[in-house]
Amino acid sequence: MTDYDVLCVGNAIVDIIARCDDDFLVDNHIIKGAMNLIDADRAKLLYDRMGPAIETSGGSAGNTAAGVASFGGKAAFFGKVANDSLGDIYAHDIRAQGVAFDTKPLTQDPPTARSMIFVTPDGERSMNTYLGACVELGPEDVEEDKTKGARVTYFEGYLWDPPRAKEAIRIAADQAHAADREVAMTLSDPFCVDRYREEFLELMRSRTVDIVFSNESEMKSLYQTASFEAGLDAFRKDCRLGIVTRSEKGSVLVRGQETIQIEPLEIGELVDTTGAGDLYAAGFLHGYTKGRPLADCGALGSLAAGLIIQQIGPRPQHSLKEKAQQHGLG
Amino acid sequence: MTDYDVLCVGNAIVDIIARCDDDFLVDNHIIKGAMNLIDADRAKLLYDRMGPAIETSGGSAGNTAAGVASFGGKAAFFGKVANDSLGDIYAHDIRAQGVAFDTKPLTQDPPTARSMIFVTPDGERSMNTYLGACVELGPEDVEEDKTKGARVTYFEGYLWDPPRAKEAIRIAADQAHAADREVAMTLSDPFCVDRYREEFLELMRSRTVDIVFSNESEMKSLYQTASFEAGLDAFRKDCRLGIVTRSEKGSVLVRGQETIQIEPLEIGELVDTTGAGDLYAAGFLHGYTKGRPLADCGALGSLAAGLIIQQIGPRPQHSLKEKAQQHGLG
Repeated sequence: MTDYDVLCVGNAIVDIIARCDDDFLVDNHIIKGAMNLIDADRAKLLYDRMGPAIETSGGSAGNTAAGVASFGGKAAFFGKVANDSLGDIYAHDIRAQGVAFDTKPLTQDPPTARSMIFVTPDGERSMNTYLGACVELGPEDVEEDKTKGARVTYFEGYLWDPPRAKEAIRIAADQAHAADREVAMTLSDPFCVDRYREEFLELMRSRTVDIVFSNESEMKSLYQTASFEAGLDAFRKDCRLGIVTRSEKGSVLVRGQETIQIEPLEIGELVDTTGAGDLYAAGFLHGYTKGRPLADCGALGSLAAGLIIQQIGPRPQHSLKEKAQQHGLG
Repeated sequence: MTDYDVLCVGNAIVDIIARCDDDFLVDNHIIKGAMNLIDADRAKLLYDRMGPAIETSGGSAGNTAAGVASFGGKAAFFGKVANDSLGDIYAHDIRAQGVAFDTKPLTQDPPTARSMIFVTPDGERSMNTYLGACVELGPEDVEEDKTKGARVTYFEGYLWDPPRAKEAIRIAADQAHAADREVAMTLSDPFCVDRYREEFLELMRSRTVDIVFSNESEMKSLYQTASFEAGLDAFRKDCRLGIVTRSEKGSVLVRGQETIQIEPLEIGELVDTTGAGDLYAAGFLHGYTKGRPLADCGALGSLAAGLIIQQIGPRPQHSLKEKAQQHGLG
């Protein structure tokens, strides 16, 4: 059995990124800052209206796996692509980053998933995701040597959108726990939380999940509260270890009655927020699986998130290992 | 007949861009700074060795067309993609930039061309191009309404690599001249010049081409001289209007005995030189087709080239029209 630091499970998506103004979002009924699920027809319509774009591998948990590997951690990924050009690009990029990726590609339709991401002048990203081949991820894609070999198995809440991935996750979590490993998830998106609130709470309260990543709006959506403090108190009870990211306010870690405040990275120009949460999780989990103190884990998360929002796209363009060393976190 | 400012003809290529160190180029026998032509087998081999990449539409003349459109000029493009995902991306991006692009895609193999571009820490790009569908561009792809309707028909020297594109170019040039239009070309690459030196000189001396874009090493290759001054003297005789770009030394325009020196744009960080020459041509031709003085045309070229090397990839990510206004060149 190979040992891994982090196994990530998520939708395998190629991002198609273009800039637009705020009016474009309004005119096209795109919820700003959210992940909007779209079908094939709307994907075609929006692509026809989209400006010149660049393509990069993406997908929340895939970005996290790439980030962990860039820090020098040993990462693996489960996710479903099709046997097509975008699938080739996806598989190339994640393997070239050093992530173990062996999920069998689909040999027929639907095609590899893509997300059209519109970046407004304020740097905020609004995603429009066609799930494509991701709908075929299922229990047969769980590789037990990896769930048992990984210190942390991490999955995205977005996996509740395709029909059978949640079954895969429950199996993977059972295998991980049977091997005395930990399981983590991200709540992914406030609207995703709204779709699956009860199931996410059940995952947390049943301790199917040990560690939960959330941003402020996802946590507020989870508990249907406008109060950050009320949300945090509830979160504290429901997670063994909870992490709440707050953009320019940094992040907060809670474990029982313990609370740790983490400062954000000071940044220059905010270019594109795509991947901020994913890379925070990468930095945190890299530190966590290396046995670093929680404050260091949070600082590594802030570093990776702060760097990724100063570039276009969610995959690190420079070695995070070197960046961590430069920031005294190596 | 629709009027166009610039019709560009070139290889329609999707760029796959990744960073590497200089050792990688040496180990893989890639000529630094050059366009290396590769076959399908070598494309697979190099892609297997390439790090995580991003994809963007590219191709020299296609980049120039996109640049002209970004300045607000009316541009058209001839180039051959296949009916596949990368071809869809290429067609989308150039049309979304506002360029008229109606070349029929191939409905069978080979696939859309791609160039694996390795960017070293000094910002220099080294290209590895698999021509794919580009080999099928031929006289049947010349749209006479566009050759006659465009103030300048501009093509890349790279078109001498595929077998039948040169026939298309001669037909397009004849049609353009018959309509009292001008014809321009870029020498593209010093090794390309070496492959087709006599043919390029014939194009110039027969006045099949009126305006020639070159960089310093291409001009030296053309005349097989190490002397910039000797090359420039010969160039002056062979071109009606000659433009020689010299990276951080700016550029030189020659027309008969007239010589105009153009300053480069002062830049911050050099990120990636991909597209520098293509965007210089875009700025120059935009000014030229709007009837601006040659010094302004050169300044617009310097502006566009200087901006493109401060980002990854050869397609402008911001409106060059706005940038020109900000720099007092609008």
